[in-house]
This record gives sequence, structure tokens and C-alpha cells, in this order.
Amino acid sequence: MDHLKETTIKKEKLFSGRIIDLYLEEVRLPNGNTSSREIIKHPGAVAVIAITEKNKIVMVRQFRKAMEKVLVEIPAGKLEKGEEPATTAKRELEEETGYTCDSLKPLISFYTSPGFADELVHLFVANGLRKDTVDHHLDEDEFVDLLEITLEEAQRMVENQEIYDAKTAYAVQYLQLQAMMRK
Amino acid sequence: MDHLKETTIKKEKLFSGRIIDLYLEEVRLPNGNTSSREIIKHPGAVAVIAITEKNKIVMVRQFRKAMEKVLVEIPAGKLEKGEEPATTAKRELEEETGYTCDSLKPLISFYTSPGFADELVHLFVANGLRKDTVDHHLDEDEFVDLLEITLEEAQRMVENQEIYDAKTAYAVQYLQLQAMMRK
Repeated sequence: MDHLKETTIKKEKLFSGRIIDLYLEEVRLPNGNTSSREIIKHPGAVAVIAITEKNKIVMVRQFRKAMEKVLVEIPAGKLEKGEEPATTAKRELEEETGYTCDSLKPLISFYTSPGFADELVHLFVANGLRKDTVDHHLDEDEFVDLLEITLEEAQRMVENQEIYDAKTAYAVQYLQLQAMMRK
Repeated sequence: MDHLKETTIKKEKLFSGRIIDLYLEEVRLPNGNTSSREIIKHPGAVAVIAITEKNKIVMVRQFRKAMEKVLVEIPAGKLEKGEEPATTAKRELEEETGYTCDSLKPLISFYTSPGFADELVHLFVANGLRKDTVDHHLDEDEFVDLLEITLEEAQRMVENQEIYDAKTAYAVQYLQLQAMMRK
């Protein structure tokens, strides 16, 4: 793949934040010319498909400042440094929804915005879901509403753009596919 | 949803790039406390599911500097200011793959990284795909390889993490679902 590769000539860190860092890179293109790349470094994230005993999908409503909108999403959160994705996923599920689970099966990992960011989302399926008896606490700057919906409601919310993010749309489609396979 | 809303106290533009802008916002949380939000503004993007006469999925191989990796993705590109998503999609498909199409059906739009970015991807399905006879040119800093693969190959590449981005994983799953519905 070397005929596609871009090599770094210069790399400058322009911003170091709580969650993201911004780099500006000068690169040598495959044809010898130069260009610049604006790159966001992100610690990565996890997301969980969790289905209740009553066959409802566990979702959270959360205000997303980047869009100035409340989005409906599957439970998710960013990776802590050095933490295993499955550990983060179990914790985020508990904190955001009050549900715990016996185990988490890795389903797929994907980059969300490869054009400018290295954020990798690890998607899990929770097994043995049950309401936790221990009280959990959200991060102090996190506010979410719990929502439990059927697959049909989720599909309708995708159509109405109430579900409007990639990982959740993927999860709903995955559950549609599973439902079809069972038929 | 007002009990979830965060209001802006202060907003500072820290970087204005060719593709992304970075803002740091100080926000008032629903409980009255304050916090900061790191926000990337992005013009939005399009992506195209295109199937050839031989029933192959049209993909491109592209070096992605943020990951220092070559990724296999469905044809995609960022929106130009004021341009209709379907127009961008048709142009990007032609430039990246040499295929043109009769029409494009909007399939779904989703935010890719709602936690820190407002990038919205509009996904289309191309109808009436054919090789274009006119020569097209990529952006001067864009280098891609064309790839045409079966659905089975695509599924294998998802499993092997050769297909490793959200929009492409969504597209492959969509085509799986369509294939199952036809059975």
C-alpha cells in the first residue's frame, strides 16, 4: 500500500484538551507534493447493546453540545487510559442506565470519522442483563435520561431522525438483522 | 428535554482549519454547575453505496493520516459549502471511482462522533451505476485505489478489521439485511 502512504514532514500539537488533542501535520503525498492534515486524537470509546428481559433496547437521552440537540443513543462512554474496553463498557452501562450484566461480547470496532479523527468505538452486546441494586453515579458533568424501547420503536426513531448517530443506527440495524435470522 | 440542556456561558474559537474548526465552550450544566466542552465543527460529509452490474460493492482504499493506516471504505467525501448532499455524493462517486449513476436515494444520515464533533454523514444508495466515459480527477491531495468486492468478501473484511469504519460497516450490514429480505 506504499503508493498511498503519506509521510509526516512536520507535526505540531495545537491543542491539548480534557478529551481531544488537535495536531496539524505537514505531509508528503504519494506524488511528492505536500499538503496539510488536521488531526484529532481521541482516547477511543465503547458502546453497549443491552436488551432487557421484556425485550426492550436500553437507550439514553443526552444533550450533545456539538449539535445543540438531545440525541437518543445506546449507552456509551470514552475509554479511560489503560482501561480494557470491556471494563469501560460494563461501568458505563451501570453508570448511565443502572443495569449490570453477566458478560459482554465484543461485536465490532470501527473508526467513526477516519477523515480527521482516530476515535475508535468498540461495540459490545451485553448478556444476562439485570437491574443493579447498587446505586451508581454518573460523571459529575453528565446528565442522561433512561429510555427502553422496542425494536419497532427504534426503527421508527431512526426514520424520524430521533436516533441520529452512527453507533446507534448500526446497533438498531444489527438487531433487525438478528430478528430476521431468527424468523 | 430542558432538564438535560447545557447553556453556553463562553465560547472561544481556538482553531480555524481547512476542514475543521475547534471551539472551547464553557457551559452551565442542568444542575447549575459549570463544565467545559471541546467541540469540533465539520462541514458534514456524504457516502455512497454503489453496486456494479456484476453485483460487486464499490470500495476505495485510502491512507488515513489520523490512524496512519490504509482503510477500505465506501466512496465518500466532505460537503462543499452550500452544496446539496446528493450533488456532492454524485461528484465524489465519479471522482473516486470513475462510476456515474442515474440517481441517488438518501438512505440515512447520522452523526459520527456526537460526543465531540458535529460531523453529519449522509448515506446514499446509487441507482443505475455505470462506468463513466469522461475522465475525472481526484482532489490534488487525494490518492485512492478502486476495489470491487462481493458482499461475502466485505463481511470477511469487517471480521478481519480491514473494513474498519462506521459508515462502511453500516453499509455492509445494510446490504446483508437487503440480501436476507430477498430470500
